[in-house]
Amino acid sequence: MSELQIQAGRAREAWRILAVADTETKNKALQRMADCLLEDAQRIMEANKLDVEAAQAKGTSAAFIERLTLNEKRIDAMANGLRDVARLNDPIGEELDAWTRPNGLNIVRRRVPLGVIGIIYESRPNVTADAAALCLKSGNAVILRGGSDAFRSNAAIMESLRRGVKEAGLPEDCVSLVMDPSRETAGELMRMNEYIDVLIPRGGKGLIQSVVKNATVPVIQTGDGVCHVYVDRDCELALAQTVAVSAKISRPSVCNSAETLLVDEAIAETFLPGCVKELKEKGVEVRGCEKVLKVCPDVVPAAEEDWDTEYNDMIYSVKVVSGVKEAVAHINRHGTRHSEAIMTENAETAAYFKGMIDAAAVYVNASTRFTDGGEFGFGAEIGISTQKLHARGPMGLNELTTYKYEITGSGQIR
Amino acid sequence: MSELQIQAGRAREAWRILAVADTETKNKALQRMADCLLEDAQRIMEANKLDVEAAQAKGTSAAFIERLTLNEKRIDAMANGLRDVARLNDPIGEELDAWTRPNGLNIVRRRVPLGVIGIIYESRPNVTADAAALCLKSGNAVILRGGSDAFRSNAAIMESLRRGVKEAGLPEDCVSLVMDPSRETAGELMRMNEYIDVLIPRGGKGLIQSVVKNATVPVIQTGDGVCHVYVDRDCELALAQTVAVSAKISRPSVCNSAETLLVDEAIAETFLPGCVKELKEKGVEVRGCEKVLKVCPDVVPAAEEDWDTEYNDMIYSVKVVSGVKEAVAHINRHGTRHSEAIMTENAETAAYFKGMIDAAAVYVNASTRFTDGGEFGFGAEIGISTQKLHARGPMGLNELTTYKYEITGSGQIR
Repeated sequence: MSELQIQAGRAREAWRILAVADTETKNKALQRMADCLLEDAQRIMEANKLDVEAAQAKGTSAAFIERLTLNEKRIDAMANGLRDVARLNDPIGEELDAWTRPNGLNIVRRRVPLGVIGIIYESRPNVTADAAALCLKSGNAVILRGGSDAFRSNAAIMESLRRGVKEAGLPEDCVSLVMDPSRETAGELMRMNEYIDVLIPRGGKGLIQSVVKNATVPVIQTGDGVCHVYVDRDCELALAQTVAVSAKISRPSVCNSAETLLVDEAIAETFLPGCVKELKEKGVEVRGCEKVLKVCPDVVPAAEEDWDTEYNDMIYSVKVVSGVKEAVAHINRHGTRHSEAIMTENAETAAYFKGMIDAAAVYVNASTRFTDGGEFGFGAEIGISTQKLHARGPMGLNELTTYKYEITGSGQIR
Repeated sequence: MSELQIQAGRAREAWRILAVADTETKNKALQRMADCLLEDAQRIMEANKLDVEAAQAKGTSAAFIERLTLNEKRIDAMANGLRDVARLNDPIGEELDAWTRPNGLNIVRRRVPLGVIGIIYESRPNVTADAAALCLKSGNAVILRGGSDAFRSNAAIMESLRRGVKEAGLPEDCVSLVMDPSRETAGELMRMNEYIDVLIPRGGKGLIQSVVKNATVPVIQTGDGVCHVYVDRDCELALAQTVAVSAKISRPSVCNSAETLLVDEAIAETFLPGCVKELKEKGVEVRGCEKVLKVCPDVVPAAEEDWDTEYNDMIYSVKVVSGVKEAVAHINRHGTRHSEAIMTENAETAAYFKGMIDAAAVYVNASTRFTDGGEFGFGAEIGISTQKLHARGPMGLNELTTYKYEITGSGQIR
């Protein structure tokens, strides 16, 4: 047996106990995990310092260093995140459905944990605490495989989390970290079907594609977001401009921000000049199709690949379309099934858009930026699913569960 | 573009129309598909005759030939199956949940089709009609890839089904068959993530494992069933014997039949002799552990691999365990998370078993054989999921759907 198989076997054993643990015990564990993080803040920051120094020596970007760095405020935030999850409703045990068959069999569909979840993520150490908290509250054991650049930070955080779990009377193997953050262990994790029920990759496109390609364990694909705002001929122009601009600039680095603005040709000449002007004033690089260039000659010409690019940056591709039909066709071809918005006052056009768009979240007269567990009222999220199996859109605690059928009879046979 | 990419592209385009088709149109298509099958029965049987002759020439087993052969009665049954699906409720469009956020955003979670489903199956031509019907009713386009031994039969059936779909005014590409049933096309289908949303393999263990291993498209794993009946010390002995015997013999070839009988040592001496006697009288080969052999010296000794074997045959492995705890541990180790039963009158023991067993269906005082879409009241099923993502247990029309969030605002931004 490999190291990882031993670890995963322990996680599976721990899960058997966690799966039937009561809410009070799980909440106590989350509170103790938070306490331990705060108690160990000094040790965690020292470990983090080594990671940051190594990353600096390698010459990684300032943004990377920024995401990697921990300080007291960030450790406080992690601890508060754990306490927030303790306050959420426990989804486990809920009776989702119940009925009795003509032969007298009583069938109950009950919510249960998924089992052992593997999470593969990049170098943001706060994910270690967030993911552990959500998995534990939903009764799942978790094996975390973080990026090698944050390994010392993750290991220090994990030590505190495991101490908290243990002090609350649960097996510490409910949460664990892969101690060899090499490419090989990631590959092994992806194929441990006997031990791991679900894999959730969190990170950039490359990481997610690698997991989708190489995993035999079922995967929930997250993250990728080429989101669109379509401004229809029947919109309120000022409102449409507000939403179109905000969906790009309010936080361009995240997956639910808009990448492409589609404008109905019937209003292109009235809408585009003002909107493009505001975008430029706010620092956005606008890349337009030929029809946009005719109205706003000073924008950058868009290339074909722009329509498929998630910039995650202050860049916006803009295209004029003949109406809602072309907008829908463009989105279904170039979108990533994440979040799509239409600005229109026409109920029929809105209904067509809602019905025809194939995405997790379809917005009428609102920004795509609301696709988020917190904004949906889920309290927290482990990621945003862009696949269709199991869960779609923001994944909160419920989305980390499955169900089982409990059937009670009096000796029925077939 | 490959042949298969062209076909899948057409399926995707057809799906856009099918996804928003009304119930009446879909039902009309199902009825016309049934009519066409009956009208074309002669042509279908001629094609089938060629498949059967080729299979006989290859020297395949009698059971294989039996599953492959079509006659008027079986074509009638296929047509009736299509009409049965027409009578089921249409799951699409259902509002699963709805709420309004403090910022005024109204969120609706609505049931929608999965998209394009790929089904890879072995040489049972009736699957062609069954699977097409369930996918169409649930608004999904389907690409079927049947076994090469049934290719001529499947192609003939598909020709009739497509004619029916077209005559009802839907695009015939809603249902199609892969016209080159080679290993290569199966492999290609498994990796067409851009075109296919979900893969469902139907068939033996080898087929399913190959799909799980090689697919990058999300898979719903079905079928594998090493199911157990545990007879507890607090059971009604006569009832337990009835269920234990029936769960094996009522239809040994299917996945929900029992493969292993676990008996509490406290009642081994009173229960085993009568039960083993009845099993033998009914033609079952009993393979027992050492403790079984002590009570019933005339049974075959079980080998270690017996506990992991799905016989699908009149063979039953029998093991004495120290009580419900060992029974649960044995099942969670050797079971395939399909269906597990306990016979007990003790409510506490039953609750422990229900809580601790990790399986799609857990039975108290009933046979495992009820894990079936029809028996659950789903009307029909596409298979029995043994994984935890998306759907667990019998998969009816609801399990062939996903959801999307429709969010309506008045210009909200973040």
